[in-house]
Amino acid sequence: MSRSILCFGEVLLRLSAPGKQLLMQSGSFEAHVGGAEANVAVSLSRLGHRTAIASNLPDNALGHSCIGELQRHGVDIGAVQFREGRMGLYFLTHGAGQRPAEVLYDRAQSAFALAPAETHDWKSLLQDTQWLHISGITPAVSAAAAEAALLAMRAARAMNVNVSFDCNFRAKLWGTRSAQAPKILSELCQHADLIFGDDRDLAFMLGFDAGNVSATEKRRKAAAVAFETFRALRWIAYTERTRHSADSQQLAGTLHTAQDVFTTRPYPLQGIVDRIGAGDAFAAGILHGLIRGLSPQATVDFATAAGCLKHTIPGDFNLLGVSDIELFLSEVQTDVRR
Amino acid sequence: MSRSILCFGEVLLRLSAPGKQLLMQSGSFEAHVGGAEANVAVSLSRLGHRTAIASNLPDNALGHSCIGELQRHGVDIGAVQFREGRMGLYFLTHGAGQRPAEVLYDRAQSAFALAPAETHDWKSLLQDTQWLHISGITPAVSAAAAEAALLAMRAARAMNVNVSFDCNFRAKLWGTRSAQAPKILSELCQHADLIFGDDRDLAFMLGFDAGNVSATEKRRKAAAVAFETFRALRWIAYTERTRHSADSQQLAGTLHTAQDVFTTRPYPLQGIVDRIGAGDAFAAGILHGLIRGLSPQATVDFATAAGCLKHTIPGDFNLLGVSDIELFLSEVQTDVRR
Amino acid sequence: MSRSILCFGEVLLRLSAPGKQLLMQSGSFEAHVGGAEANVAVSLSRLGHRTAIASNLPDNALGHSCIGELQRHGVDIGAVQFREGRMGLYFLTHGAGQRPAEVLYDRAQSAFALAPAETHDWKSLLQDTQWLHISGITPAVSAAAAEAALLAMRAARAMNVNVSFDCNFRAKLWGTRSAQAPKILSELCQHADLIFGDDRDLAFMLGFDAGNVSATEKRRKAAAVAFETFRALRWIAYTERTRHSADSQQLAGTLHTAQDVFTTRPYPLQGIVDRIGAGDAFAAGILHGLIRGLSPQATVDFATAAGCLKHTIPGDFNLLGVSDIELFLSEVQTDVRR
Amino acid sequence: MSRSILCFGEVLLRLSAPGKQLLMQSGSFEAHVGGAEANVAVSLSRLGHRTAIASNLPDNALGHSCIGELQRHGVDIGAVQFREGRMGLYFLTHGAGQRPAEVLYDRAQSAFALAPAETHDWKSLLQDTQWLHISGITPAVSAAAAEAALLAMRAARAMNVNVSFDCNFRAKLWGTRSAQAPKILSELCQHADLIFGDDRDLAFMLGFDAGNVSATEKRRKAAAVAFETFRALRWIAYTERTRHSADSQQLAGTLHTAQDVFTTRPYPLQGIVDRIGAGDAFAAGILHGLIRGLSPQATVDFATAAGCLKHTIPGDFNLLGVSDIELFLSEVQTDVRR
Amino acid sequence: MSRSILCFGEVLLRLSAPGKQLLMQSGSFEAHVGGAEANVAVSLSRLGHRTAIASNLPDNALGHSCIGELQRHGVDIGAVQFREGRMGLYFLTHGAGQRPAEVLYDRAQSAFALAPAETHDWKSLLQDTQWLHISGITPAVSAAAAEAALLAMRAARAMNVNVSFDCNFRAKLWGTRSAQAPKILSELCQHADLIFGDDRDLAFMLGFDAGNVSATEKRRKAAAVAFETFRALRWIAYTERTRHSADSQQLAGTLHTAQDVFTTRPYPLQGIVDRIGAGDAFAAGILHGLIRGLSPQATVDFATAAGCLKHTIPGDFNLLGVSDIELFLSEVQTDVRR
Amino acid sequence: MSRSILCFGEVLLRLSAPGKQLLMQSGSFEAHVGGAEANVAVSLSRLGHRTAIASNLPDNALGHSCIGELQRHGVDIGAVQFREGRMGLYFLTHGAGQRPAEVLYDRAQSAFALAPAETHDWKSLLQDTQWLHISGITPAVSAAAAEAALLAMRAARAMNVNVSFDCNFRAKLWGTRSAQAPKILSELCQHADLIFGDDRDLAFMLGFDAGNVSATEKRRKAAAVAFETFRALRWIAYTERTRHSADSQQLAGTLHTAQDVFTTRPYPLQGIVDRIGAGDAFAAGILHGLIRGLSPQATVDFATAAGCLKHTIPGDFNLLGVSDIELFLSEVQTDVRR
Repeated sequence: MSRSILCFGEVLLRLSAPGKQLLMQSGSFEAHVGGAEANVAVSLSRLGHRTAIASNLPDNALGHSCIGELQRHGVDIGAVQFREGRMGLYFLTHGAGQRPAEVLYDRAQSAFALAPAETHDWKSLLQDTQWLHISGITPAVSAAAAEAALLAMRAARAMNVNVSFDCNFRAKLWGTRSAQAPKILSELCQHADLIFGDDRDLAFMLGFDAGNVSATEKRRKAAAVAFETFRALRWIAYTERTRHSADSQQLAGTLHTAQDVFTTRPYPLQGIVDRIGAGDAFAAGILHGLIRGLSPQATVDFATAAGCLKHTIPGDFNLLGVSDIELFLSEVQTDVRR
Repeated sequence: MSRSILCFGEVLLRLSAPGKQLLMQSGSFEAHVGGAEANVAVSLSRLGHRTAIASNLPDNALGHSCIGELQRHGVDIGAVQFREGRMGLYFLTHGAGQRPAEVLYDRAQSAFALAPAETHDWKSLLQDTQWLHISGITPAVSAAAAEAALLAMRAARAMNVNVSFDCNFRAKLWGTRSAQAPKILSELCQHADLIFGDDRDLAFMLGFDAGNVSATEKRRKAAAVAFETFRALRWIAYTERTRHSADSQQLAGTLHTAQDVFTTRPYPLQGIVDRIGAGDAFAAGILHGLIRGLSPQATVDFATAAGCLKHTIPGDFNLLGVSDIELFLSEVQTDVRR
Repeated sequence: MSRSILCFGEVLLRLSAPGKQLLMQSGSFEAHVGGAEANVAVSLSRLGHRTAIASNLPDNALGHSCIGELQRHGVDIGAVQFREGRMGLYFLTHGAGQRPAEVLYDRAQSAFALAPAETHDWKSLLQDTQWLHISGITPAVSAAAAEAALLAMRAARAMNVNVSFDCNFRAKLWGTRSAQAPKILSELCQHADLIFGDDRDLAFMLGFDAGNVSATEKRRKAAAVAFETFRALRWIAYTERTRHSADSQQLAGTLHTAQDVFTTRPYPLQGIVDRIGAGDAFAAGILHGLIRGLSPQATVDFATAAGCLKHTIPGDFNLLGVSDIELFLSEVQTDVRR
Repeated sequence: MSRSILCFGEVLLRLSAPGKQLLMQSGSFEAHVGGAEANVAVSLSRLGHRTAIASNLPDNALGHSCIGELQRHGVDIGAVQFREGRMGLYFLTHGAGQRPAEVLYDRAQSAFALAPAETHDWKSLLQDTQWLHISGITPAVSAAAAEAALLAMRAARAMNVNVSFDCNFRAKLWGTRSAQAPKILSELCQHADLIFGDDRDLAFMLGFDAGNVSATEKRRKAAAVAFETFRALRWIAYTERTRHSADSQQLAGTLHTAQDVFTTRPYPLQGIVDRIGAGDAFAAGILHGLIRGLSPQATVDFATAAGCLKHTIPGDFNLLGVSDIELFLSEVQTDVRR
Repeated sequence: MSRSILCFGEVLLRLSAPGKQLLMQSGSFEAHVGGAEANVAVSLSRLGHRTAIASNLPDNALGHSCIGELQRHGVDIGAVQFREGRMGLYFLTHGAGQRPAEVLYDRAQSAFALAPAETHDWKSLLQDTQWLHISGITPAVSAAAAEAALLAMRAARAMNVNVSFDCNFRAKLWGTRSAQAPKILSELCQHADLIFGDDRDLAFMLGFDAGNVSATEKRRKAAAVAFETFRALRWIAYTERTRHSADSQQLAGTLHTAQDVFTTRPYPLQGIVDRIGAGDAFAAGILHGLIRGLSPQATVDFATAAGCLKHTIPGDFNLLGVSDIELFLSEVQTDVRR
Repeated sequence: MSRSILCFGEVLLRLSAPGKQLLMQSGSFEAHVGGAEANVAVSLSRLGHRTAIASNLPDNALGHSCIGELQRHGVDIGAVQFREGRMGLYFLTHGAGQRPAEVLYDRAQSAFALAPAETHDWKSLLQDTQWLHISGITPAVSAAAAEAALLAMRAARAMNVNVSFDCNFRAKLWGTRSAQAPKILSELCQHADLIFGDDRDLAFMLGFDAGNVSATEKRRKAAAVAFETFRALRWIAYTERTRHSADSQQLAGTLHTAQDVFTTRPYPLQGIVDRIGAGDAFAAGILHGLIRGLSPQATVDFATAAGCLKHTIPGDFNLLGVSDIELFLSEVQTDVRR
């Protein structure tokens, strides 16, 4: 089947303590399906795009039910392979007030981590594909996954498929492979048209130090170095979050082109319901804008609005559609839609 | 049985997504009984008044359980008739942060909508009744319901029963009958001692344009025209809401007599639990003040406090009593009542 | 077994309406174990101390399950006796917005209230104990419990065990014994090294009137009188709470020594989850600081942080550990700990 | 208001462990309203009769919500008084397999137990009343309640109101008053037209020993003695239960007149949902049959069917109507009613 | 996309009372997606077949979430149209013990009922389709739906697509159109290769009276008449249910060819979880057997096993796969699969 | 601290689908703590014995909460070590009707599996210990765990501590180490005073084939060979289960001494709530009988009753006490204990 956007990454099962409880405070867990690339695929599907996911999952009830959840939201799962290994899990304790949220990863030895590098036939999967999206979690999971990500990106580049890469650096996941992270991430970024990452991500990858300058200057400089270093690069995007408490924060978005910088005003986030996946919702929003041909400013506005609204949806997926996001951007005071 | 306040309108079953979930995000619904007039009747019952509801419901488990819920809160249901037709439903998605709440009506072909105009014997039902209360939703439901509302109001006027009418204009419910709405609403308002409606409601009914003046001036002018047009009219009341997010808003109340305007300070609404029914709680508060003989200022203060506190109660009904509302008005900082 | 901190008081079963519901609004209750002294014991256990509780409970499924809950959090229950009488209960309605929380006590005729004064062998229980902690609720429950508290404190004093006393004055619990409260409380305070109580508590006990002076001056004066009156007294500690709504408040802590006053800045409390037990979490924090030999300022900072964070935990117990509290105090913006 | 059947007894709040859990195994309780006489009143109301309850309840949120629950099912609560004292509670662990259900009473010092004997004006309450119903739990609760029951029955007798009495002997509730139970129960039975009680109940009251005879003979003999002893007595009714497990049992009913015995076949009870209140549902069924003028056989058939069907309804109340019971008796295999 | 089995019918949202509760006994509903043809499509998808559904749904959150639920189970929804009208609902009370389950339909004015006859392009939809499946509920919903069913079947016949038809006669749904039911159903059956229906269904359609003969004889005779009347007919299949209680029943299956009858032994059904959709699970099992080329006996065995196992799955769908059904048929005592 | 019974094995977190749902059918899991040896320790603690567990758990929120759950039931956890590795999980789907329960293990790379053989100081841990209990799951988890089990048993033997071993053979857990299982298990059994295992377990270990004889004869023969082979062996115990459905089964117990065989009658199990852990409850019952000095018949009766009653308790632990089990054995028909 033809696909517009193909995401490659690990699908995770999240088990969270209900409401504001601590983990195991009472005897139950709420289950949601997530994973950075799955989140992007579902978001884009709800925004009206054809999407597909390439992944590896265990051939058991957990793996199959995750697939079902992706299908439910319209994501094509033809490129998912069932293989040896565990279901990747993570346990989530929601934050509350001044208590931060807490994630306990339990994804070692997952089917995705154990899969060899050459399990997917990228040439065939990328037929009729407009964009390939991968996050920095994929190369962190295992050396084979990193290799697979590189193969996918090279194939995409060769076939004139656009490539986006979300740095998403998480030291814990890289574990003993941390030292190689900058090199691996940089290699991947060589193939990217679009990188999601702020000045710290870029500095980490490029071994770059902006010196003692203002935050704005740091970002500008980091972007300049990145556009110079990564030859395919056309866009850099990221959000900036200010946190007052687990329930009340602020979010602003930025989109760099080689020439310009486009920013949004900081949007207040009140009564936050579920903070996980907001970055992926933003990423999906940027892809939506670029695919639909919106202006850079309209693109970053749309993406930031999507990121903000994700905070109101339980689970990892942003389930809202274009009209919900446009209503947000219209700034019309709407209390109850009838 | 003698009744102090009789409300006439449709009783609805509300099915809401749990917590902050989207509709059908997980496999369950929370059920509450509501409907503008039922909400007013229950509020007044909890404030210590004898109340009754006249309505039409399907003769099935849903209709009967709605009746039970009204009885639970002390509302007399002797004037409810069981008739052909469906149970009127509405599906509610609670708002969260910048995402507004959403109501999906499913009340077509309800027992109330299908009932003929002359099913209730108003002369008998209004015996010993002090007030008749009807909202603008009743005439919107069907032509027969509009006719029934008119019959009820005329009977009340003839028997010296006070009449209150809550404009509550909702274009969607009027559907193809929208064009007739102003005329029908105006006709009903001719019989009202008390109208709940702000300048937009009044302007819509009266085909009136206040011109390019301040908000305060608009309201004053609209009230003046209304007092001139509707001969029985003695009071106009409404609230003004400012919305920062689904969880954090502001509410102020106004009560007009022919001579004066009484307003409250804007009260902050934080940590909003359930915003539905707040207008009905306010309406019940105004009726309470008028019936108890409170001063106009005390009346609008009490009603606005009732409207504010409704936001803290799950479901459509304001279940709080006079002492809860007086504690709110006392502005004593009470953290835990022991 | 050796014990570091022994708490003596009634263990309660709390039955609360789910979420923001009113009591019995829907057909279920959430159950938690609490009681001022049990809360302190559990908090200290989670902070890494050896703790024990002395109490009396009914010999039925409720009494035994409360014991299990204390054991779960590492509190030694060897000094709990099973006796005639009921399980002490309290029903809780959480506050919301401008609606305060509400506690309905149902602890009359409890096993604790009915127990005779001399049921515990304090000399043996206080072996190897560093601190004895009792709150003002214990003497309020019954004359025998007041007598038992006095016996325990005298034994502690004689054995050079430190004594802390949390005034926690609640007129409703004292009932017809209210008039004797100041005398009984004062007598207990004669044995205390540490009193939890603000100027109103102290003034009530000591029959003292600070006159028309500033709040700060009142507290300073009350402390001075207390240090003069109570010969063993070395520390006085309390919190000051400002309430905007049930969800949004502010907390600051104070610790007096005979010479100095140490205060914290007021911390904002946003998105409050469960306000019950915050005072006990603060008390446990002060004891932690004193036992660990922290400076007075570090002690009151730690305790106030503990009190603040308790607002984010469902139930009466503060389940957080030292590292959670230190993260709070570090003021590092942490959104998600991974 | 005129009433057909007046029940006098304590209204209880039941707190049960969810599903098949043990008490406090997880942190929640399900709440239901019950009490022998309340159960009879609600059953009769659902069978189409006008019913009322006379009782004493605490003037707090628990007492008022119990009242609301009775109103929901159409029971008149005009004869309920709010008085000093606790809400009577009981904790229920449902049975499962070979594990029996377990009831933990917590009703000491309740408003009902503390009420003086002469709080109700029976002469006025029994106006227009056809039957007075009281169970043996009422005199067990306190001496004053026993006295009140006697006053009520005497008034009924004097006013030609029929009287039914359900022996319901529970040694635990009588406590230290156990020795007086036979005398008190006998005195009450002197006024009863109808007694619910099997041969063991009757033998206990009458100090009667049937000797070493068959079960059938024992019952016949006990009935004979009862008809001889209690001059007003016209009917004796009871059920016989055989238990295979908590989920699978058998129930048969018997109705004695002075002349005859009418029995039903034993009905199998499979997949039992909630066994509490089945005896009260049977009692209500007998009263229904007698009031509607059914034949004795039809009466005991109807009552036993009602008792059987109660086992399928969660909570203490039998909420089914006449048509449900008639469908059961028709023995038509009905899998799904559409 | 190519499809193997296309089902045409209304997708319904079912709202059921939790556990064994009566409707609205507590304030929540469990939601499941169902509808006879949707059930067959999902069952076949889980058995490994490519399936699709043609239907009409409202263009709102309810309609879209139903679609999502079908996609989750792998059913192609490309032939679903979003149109004016309501979401078809039904309210379910589960049976318990001797209390039967109860279905309350609320599907009047649904998008499916209101859709005109010629909305689907059958010629295109039946491309690459092996079987078309429709139930007797579809023609009952509206005259247009009956016409649409006929158009679909005629197209299938013309294109050599096999046709199955499940009589599923429900008088309530036909309403005022009941008199035309036999004629309409017969007309549809003219195109069917396979009919699901027992002797009562066939006799009703064919106006046929088997006379006073044994049950077996009746079925044989009815089948004979059907094979004679309906020229395309090759198979007739049905189940026979014996009911002891809502929890304990028995099921046997039968498959007729023109020449032979194949029956299964009666299987005991114990601890029934959800009885809805068992007939559709059986129908899917027959289609599975025919498509996979199983022998008639193996086909009816498989289908009956599928029907039995459906009783163990909450919701309308049979979610089990081939291996689960084969384990059942193996009659190996398996307590826990590890 | 002195300990009476020390159990050594892995503590597991079980995540089960609610009620009768399939895994991930709805979005939640119920969490329970289990593991064969933990189950035995908790059972014995509830039967009044001092018990302790030696184990290895991850040093995270999951590991610590499991510890808390064991403490809640009075098990000493001083011998638990926190080490590198995952929390061992298993996912459970409850059986229903003819659908068997299903266990999905997810315990690879757990802290227990990764722990080296010599982490526990058995000589010190076995001080004051009367019995050491280990199951065959421990050696299956890893070679190091097998070695640790052997070291523990040898130490116990040397110190005259009794040793019990539950064969509990599970091929899946042994994985590639399956071929070594008989040798390892046999070596462990050399140290056992008591083996839990039926003729299949014994035959598997001993490479023994009883030939074509009756079931009774097989068991007798297997026991004879075992008593001959294992020099320390004094008792063999096992249960025999007959399964009609997931809800309805039968259980009988057997205890062999070297001279005699003691069996119970088969007990019916109806309305099974949770079948997991029944074997461990039986094992605990045997240990209880031997420690308390009951006769062999009384021991196997008690143990089988414990095993039966476990089926009525949600979760892996048997939480019932001696009096519950004695009530079961008394065969008194008890419907409701009041």
